[in-house]
Amino acid sequence: MAHPCSRLGRWLPLLLALAALAAWGAHLAPAADAPLRIIVFGAHPDDCDLDAGGSAILWAQKGHAVKFVSLTNGDAGHQSEGGGALAKRRRLEAQEAGRRFGIAEYEVLDNHDGELEPTLAVRLEVIRRIRRWNADLVIAPRPNDYHPDHRNTGLVVQDTAYMVVVPNVAPDTPPLRKNPVYMYAQDHFQRPNPFRPDVAVDIDSVIDRKIQAIDAHVSQFYEWLPWVDGKLDGVPKDPAARLAWLQQWRSFRPLNDDVKAALRKWYGPKGDAVKNAEAFEICEYGSRPTDADLRRLFPFFD
Amino acid sequence: MAHPCSRLGRWLPLLLALAALAAWGAHLAPAADAPLRIIVFGAHPDDCDLDAGGSAILWAQKGHAVKFVSLTNGDAGHQSEGGGALAKRRRLEAQEAGRRFGIAEYEVLDNHDGELEPTLAVRLEVIRRIRRWNADLVIAPRPNDYHPDHRNTGLVVQDTAYMVVVPNVAPDTPPLRKNPVYMYAQDHFQRPNPFRPDVAVDIDSVIDRKIQAIDAHVSQFYEWLPWVDGKLDGVPKDPAARLAWLQQWRSFRPLNDDVKAALRKWYGPKGDAVKNAEAFEICEYGSRPTDADLRRLFPFFD
Amino acid sequence: MAHPCSRLGRWLPLLLALAALAAWGAHLAPAADAPLRIIVFGAHPDDCDLDAGGSAILWAQKGHAVKFVSLTNGDAGHQSEGGGALAKRRRLEAQEAGRRFGIAEYEVLDNHDGELEPTLAVRLEVIRRIRRWNADLVIAPRPNDYHPDHRNTGLVVQDTAYMVVVPNVAPDTPPLRKNPVYMYAQDHFQRPNPFRPDVAVDIDSVIDRKIQAIDAHVSQFYEWLPWVDGKLDGVPKDPAARLAWLQQWRSFRPLNDDVKAALRKWYGPKGDAVKNAEAFEICEYGSRPTDADLRRLFPFFD
Amino acid sequence: MAHPCSRLGRWLPLLLALAALAAWGAHLAPAADAPLRIIVFGAHPDDCDLDAGGSAILWAQKGHAVKFVSLTNGDAGHQSEGGGALAKRRRLEAQEAGRRFGIAEYEVLDNHDGELEPTLAVRLEVIRRIRRWNADLVIAPRPNDYHPDHRNTGLVVQDTAYMVVVPNVAPDTPPLRKNPVYMYAQDHFQRPNPFRPDVAVDIDSVIDRKIQAIDAHVSQFYEWLPWVDGKLDGVPKDPAARLAWLQQWRSFRPLNDDVKAALRKWYGPKGDAVKNAEAFEICEYGSRPTDADLRRLFPFFD
Amino acid sequence: MAHPCSRLGRWLPLLLALAALAAWGAHLAPAADAPLRIIVFGAHPDDCDLDAGGSAILWAQKGHAVKFVSLTNGDAGHQSEGGGALAKRRRLEAQEAGRRFGIAEYEVLDNHDGELEPTLAVRLEVIRRIRRWNADLVIAPRPNDYHPDHRNTGLVVQDTAYMVVVPNVAPDTPPLRKNPVYMYAQDHFQRPNPFRPDVAVDIDSVIDRKIQAIDAHVSQFYEWLPWVDGKLDGVPKDPAARLAWLQQWRSFRPLNDDVKAALRKWYGPKGDAVKNAEAFEICEYGSRPTDADLRRLFPFFD
Amino acid sequence: MAHPCSRLGRWLPLLLALAALAAWGAHLAPAADAPLRIIVFGAHPDDCDLDAGGSAILWAQKGHAVKFVSLTNGDAGHQSEGGGALAKRRRLEAQEAGRRFGIAEYEVLDNHDGELEPTLAVRLEVIRRIRRWNADLVIAPRPNDYHPDHRNTGLVVQDTAYMVVVPNVAPDTPPLRKNPVYMYAQDHFQRPNPFRPDVAVDIDSVIDRKIQAIDAHVSQFYEWLPWVDGKLDGVPKDPAARLAWLQQWRSFRPLNDDVKAALRKWYGPKGDAVKNAEAFEICEYGSRPTDADLRRLFPFFD
Repeated sequence: MAHPCSRLGRWLPLLLALAALAAWGAHLAPAADAPLRIIVFGAHPDDCDLDAGGSAILWAQKGHAVKFVSLTNGDAGHQSEGGGALAKRRRLEAQEAGRRFGIAEYEVLDNHDGELEPTLAVRLEVIRRIRRWNADLVIAPRPNDYHPDHRNTGLVVQDTAYMVVVPNVAPDTPPLRKNPVYMYAQDHFQRPNPFRPDVAVDIDSVIDRKIQAIDAHVSQFYEWLPWVDGKLDGVPKDPAARLAWLQQWRSFRPLNDDVKAALRKWYGPKGDAVKNAEAFEICEYGSRPTDADLRRLFPFFD
Repeated sequence: MAHPCSRLGRWLPLLLALAALAAWGAHLAPAADAPLRIIVFGAHPDDCDLDAGGSAILWAQKGHAVKFVSLTNGDAGHQSEGGGALAKRRRLEAQEAGRRFGIAEYEVLDNHDGELEPTLAVRLEVIRRIRRWNADLVIAPRPNDYHPDHRNTGLVVQDTAYMVVVPNVAPDTPPLRKNPVYMYAQDHFQRPNPFRPDVAVDIDSVIDRKIQAIDAHVSQFYEWLPWVDGKLDGVPKDPAARLAWLQQWRSFRPLNDDVKAALRKWYGPKGDAVKNAEAFEICEYGSRPTDADLRRLFPFFD
Repeated sequence: MAHPCSRLGRWLPLLLALAALAAWGAHLAPAADAPLRIIVFGAHPDDCDLDAGGSAILWAQKGHAVKFVSLTNGDAGHQSEGGGALAKRRRLEAQEAGRRFGIAEYEVLDNHDGELEPTLAVRLEVIRRIRRWNADLVIAPRPNDYHPDHRNTGLVVQDTAYMVVVPNVAPDTPPLRKNPVYMYAQDHFQRPNPFRPDVAVDIDSVIDRKIQAIDAHVSQFYEWLPWVDGKLDGVPKDPAARLAWLQQWRSFRPLNDDVKAALRKWYGPKGDAVKNAEAFEICEYGSRPTDADLRRLFPFFD
Repeated sequence: MAHPCSRLGRWLPLLLALAALAAWGAHLAPAADAPLRIIVFGAHPDDCDLDAGGSAILWAQKGHAVKFVSLTNGDAGHQSEGGGALAKRRRLEAQEAGRRFGIAEYEVLDNHDGELEPTLAVRLEVIRRIRRWNADLVIAPRPNDYHPDHRNTGLVVQDTAYMVVVPNVAPDTPPLRKNPVYMYAQDHFQRPNPFRPDVAVDIDSVIDRKIQAIDAHVSQFYEWLPWVDGKLDGVPKDPAARLAWLQQWRSFRPLNDDVKAALRKWYGPKGDAVKNAEAFEICEYGSRPTDADLRRLFPFFD
Repeated sequence: MAHPCSRLGRWLPLLLALAALAAWGAHLAPAADAPLRIIVFGAHPDDCDLDAGGSAILWAQKGHAVKFVSLTNGDAGHQSEGGGALAKRRRLEAQEAGRRFGIAEYEVLDNHDGELEPTLAVRLEVIRRIRRWNADLVIAPRPNDYHPDHRNTGLVVQDTAYMVVVPNVAPDTPPLRKNPVYMYAQDHFQRPNPFRPDVAVDIDSVIDRKIQAIDAHVSQFYEWLPWVDGKLDGVPKDPAARLAWLQQWRSFRPLNDDVKAALRKWYGPKGDAVKNAEAFEICEYGSRPTDADLRRLFPFFD
Repeated sequence: MAHPCSRLGRWLPLLLALAALAAWGAHLAPAADAPLRIIVFGAHPDDCDLDAGGSAILWAQKGHAVKFVSLTNGDAGHQSEGGGALAKRRRLEAQEAGRRFGIAEYEVLDNHDGELEPTLAVRLEVIRRIRRWNADLVIAPRPNDYHPDHRNTGLVVQDTAYMVVVPNVAPDTPPLRKNPVYMYAQDHFQRPNPFRPDVAVDIDSVIDRKIQAIDAHVSQFYEWLPWVDGKLDGVPKDPAARLAWLQQWRSFRPLNDDVKAALRKWYGPKGDAVKNAEAFEICEYGSRPTDADLRRLFPFFD
């Protein structure tokens, strides 16, 4: 009697090879109406969600393929749990969040939280994900941030912008033939230069779904972050009540003037009414998109 | 219209999760007649082949699951090629060799040849392979060798013998619940202590198939190794002729007395007639097998 | 007869534990009139002195607790001495300088001068110092500088701004419950953006004491720095004469317009008369202070 | 009003300096009847206990100073907990065990469990502990072991055997003027060479106290180790019952012939009756003790 | 009979020592009319050429000593070759290019392409080159760039600006007694701040020679770069034709307004007619040149 | 007027290239009577001298080419000096010792003393030296030793035994076409296995010259080593007297039985009269020499 694992194990390499071949072939003749392929990198399981979760819902609703990747496993950011046990919990929460966002994948890499360094090894992990995803658009934080894991995520993703096309780098994974567009997710830091919202996405229609999705990160939004903020006592026990609490905490932050200007640029006058938005800045290091390219990558403005 | 890659990409995580679950479940109720699961580690694409290729054919013939893993991609050992281009060639050769051996998988990790170091990162790569393979038996070189990649392969595999059962280590991959048996492949070094053949396998019945399989490593056996030995001019161009040349070069090396004694131990008097054998030494660091365990792991002696 | 070392050694852990407990308890109920706790980081023994020595004297005069930390031991910056022998001399000079500044501690970490790298290990050393000091205010250089040790000091201190509150990071040292305010010491570099003096402290009343304190760094101010500048021949041998020489060399540098504006902001019109000042910029990554917070942290403006 | 922490903080450096001076002074005139100073290194909180806990009780009973040091914080070896939260628990358990052994100190360094590498940084941590303890005798595992943390502990401690006397190495800590004796704790590994019991200590009189002390490691002996062994269900819940269970599990292992011979060498014929012993092998790399030196270091044989 | 290598080998250290002494002596009394000594760093063999090749021809024409250094060996940037075999080809191409530029040396360090990290080891390699060259002027890319090797080249060269004068750093190579001027080569990145052309050099008179020199990098300009750009099919096979193709591809890019302003500053009205220029920005971290210094370093403006 | 340095600098690359070509060419047609080329590696400046200094004198007397290489610069082993200043002194002492030994070169690499790690970078430094020296014989310590720098020297040299022939490793330096013979210098350690003297060289005729040569290491033999041994007061100040003191301290150590047996093997009965000898063990990892090979490599036995 055959062992179930051994059977599956036997076919997996083939499947993986087929996937790689398919991705490889896809470069050569991308159909004009092919779905977009977006990959978002964050440092911790929940960072992609906050940075681009609303946009991800919108992309997914239109049939585009979105993948979230957390470069660390989140095994440190908690007041009373930690290590592999916490990492397992965080991975499950991320997968549930991914399901709620409607995205294709939410992968959590197994690097220690709070210890991410911009090594070649991490860079290669990122390069392989971008190639396998055959990404049109890569989103990551900027390389200046209060949290070293965020800063290093920004740095290491940025450092892949050219390398994804070099065949001798990570030769086990076929290179892309075209650099994706790279964009930064919004932050509020001013030094050495402020974030510039080249694109802003109206997420009012999905803000409730975004909050419902991040509600899956129980260990983050109902345990760790309130504890850090000294608000743990105020978190309701009842799931419905705590979701309401989360909605109040996280939504309806006033938009800054630059984001408002970006909304007006892309949405016209109706942009002025937007209450919730996600903004992105073009990174200088991948393909440089025209406005037409941006309209194709963000098919939300018509 | 859906993108072929995105579809496959969408299902892969599920398949991988199913495989992991299957492997996990397999621990809890391993059927008495379940196939054995053997994983062999080498430093370069062709090392596993030489160390355990004949035994692998025998295991596979009986329906057992064998996986070869090369810790480096072989991108340095050549007189005129190198880098990712050589690595790609070596990977294809390894896959062809795996096909000829009849084994389930031949995986080539993407570490630089000639630069393998016994880092935590490589150790974790090995831990994950052993766990996912749900291995009963792990084979690797000893940690003393003329080639630093071999030495480091031995060291790093040895360092996983306990870690494979620790859930907090590599928490993205479910731990084994039982340490596999670890064994060393044969070498001829005497310092600090000689190899001790605890088990020797008669491979006379498959020595031709073993040579035919390693014949797939064209860049190694017909280019690099003859060049190093100053024998490149003697390599025939014709595939059939060069295979014959290889058979003459590689088989029928006289067995040493310790291996002969092991053959007699396990095969009885007919062991004295064996001409080609592969020998293995029990590593002290995994599960310590009894003779009965060894008979189960090496079902060749009856 | 008891061994003196063993006795003291026996009690030290208890004392350390008590100190840690006291620091821990202190978070929970900081008295309104509790002394401020300031910690200043520099790359070399003498950097903190130049950056914040005058302010340190002023804080200490008012009963506040100031600690200087040098991340390297200064074992390289000298024309004819070096290594551990020089490091010992530099440590003693730093302790004497600390005594003259009137500060509570001057700690010199044992990392090589000229080789400081922004590793996790150094980050953890910094996190533990900030936590044990229960700091209200952390001062360090900016992460852009001509000297890589300075640059890396800025980077690594900045990278602790959030980590000091995470219990799973450096779990041997109780975390802070509130992020300190982080500020940069003044420099004159314009790229990628100039230093912005958010606060400027009038140190005219203590400039002589500041120079007298840095006079303790004999190996720096009378040997190494003059040698680098080609001025070694001009350094007097007589201690009093060389102090006078140092006073001439180091004081009364003209203040730039931004610092003058900051002095006027905080001191009003009398700020225009200030000749010597130390300026600091708010780092975006710790607690963000209001002007009222700054008046509390810099109780010098009334 | 003065801040309690700041006051204590102010005196701590002085106390530390005094302790260092005392230790330094102690080298110059070690009284003939001064207590012995023993330091034991293990990889995890509980390793020193098993290796040398009985001997430690005996030394402490005679007024000698024993310190245990765990090079990792034990934050990985557990089936359901991990990270800093587990490390904190393990540190408290170690301190309680130290109290029960009656030893002077039990220090747990803050390196990750399962990730110990033989770096310069860890070596320096060990050098400083040996110097500050002014050790006569250093005990550690051999550098060959099934667990990489054990192996690396053995390697890194061995690598300090000469360095502890070199002033330019770790110049912040005064060097020893004489190399301590280094010894290996017992293990059962045969490769590359078996453990050789140069000394064996009869611990029958304290075996119960040893077990009572390791009973403090609740997370190890009643949770993790039984789980790994598949015996978790058999662990009693009641503290007294589980201690009895532990006593049965851990004591009265048959001594091997080499240990028996060592007992006879040092205890004479009464050595034959010993049931529980701890054995040690002289490391070739520190001071090489004579038998008379060993009688002084192990004052148990008369 | 003496071995040719042994004889030469015997004298080489002496020659090297003489060269070092000469360089050392040169600091003490630099003749007013001594040739300038310029060293240019790039990440890959061909980067220095593009950044400063025209200026290098002009310097060399006037008898000044120019050295190019590539920090990596270029062993990755190719579509079908790689590793040491490619590195050897790239080194030969660089030497031929150096010959065509008329410069004194073109050195290619043996670090992996695509894997350059800003380590101490690389920093020391750079420090030694700058010292041995007794450089007046050091040119390198800025530390912000799309390619991590470029970025790290900028960072690591910048980090030497002070260290070149510290005798205890790289004590095998006599230190400089004066910091060289450091300048950045032009790039077009805007974040965190745009390149500022402090100096611009009219290279119209040598643009043809510059292109003829980079034509030596066959593997780059006729193989790799066209492949990346998808233009490989358009590259002529005939050497003369492909040189013409290269001239069309690489020359006559419109100058931006800042560069035009710099040309006018240094050349006066005739600067407006310049079609090809190389621009450089003063780095804040070495010696800060006056305009007079710049006229001396760039003796092209009269 | 030309700058002396620039002229020399211009020709050095050519000379270096010629030397490399000569070495390269030498492989292809080594004359039967070509001088032997021996390279000895030690950890510190003076280690090669003690291990093989007498044999080196003998080789040099017969016209063979010997090179000593110290992998560290000796900047730590001293009681009152350190850093680059000490390293410079040690380098000069080594060069003087080399002169006295009559060997062709004594190179001191610039790695920190007491911090040598078996990194790829150090391995490549060793590979390049062996290749450039076109070595027939490589001598180094065994990889088991009390001093981690010695241990790591042994490990790293051993790890080059195969790599020296691989062209893709260190591609800037032409590979050897034949592995040299590797031998270990004598030590007295027993674990994991004792040194085995495969060859022993009678150095009675040159023992005085050997001591006179190591007398050049003033900072070692008259300062550091006596200080460590507590014998500093006994060192005479007068150079002649201290040389006599050194001769007494270092010569006429009784030979052990294994060395005596080796002397008798190679010298016959007259070997019994030898008082001073240097012994070497064949390393298993390079070319395996026959006795005839050893007679050729050690032309001392007739």
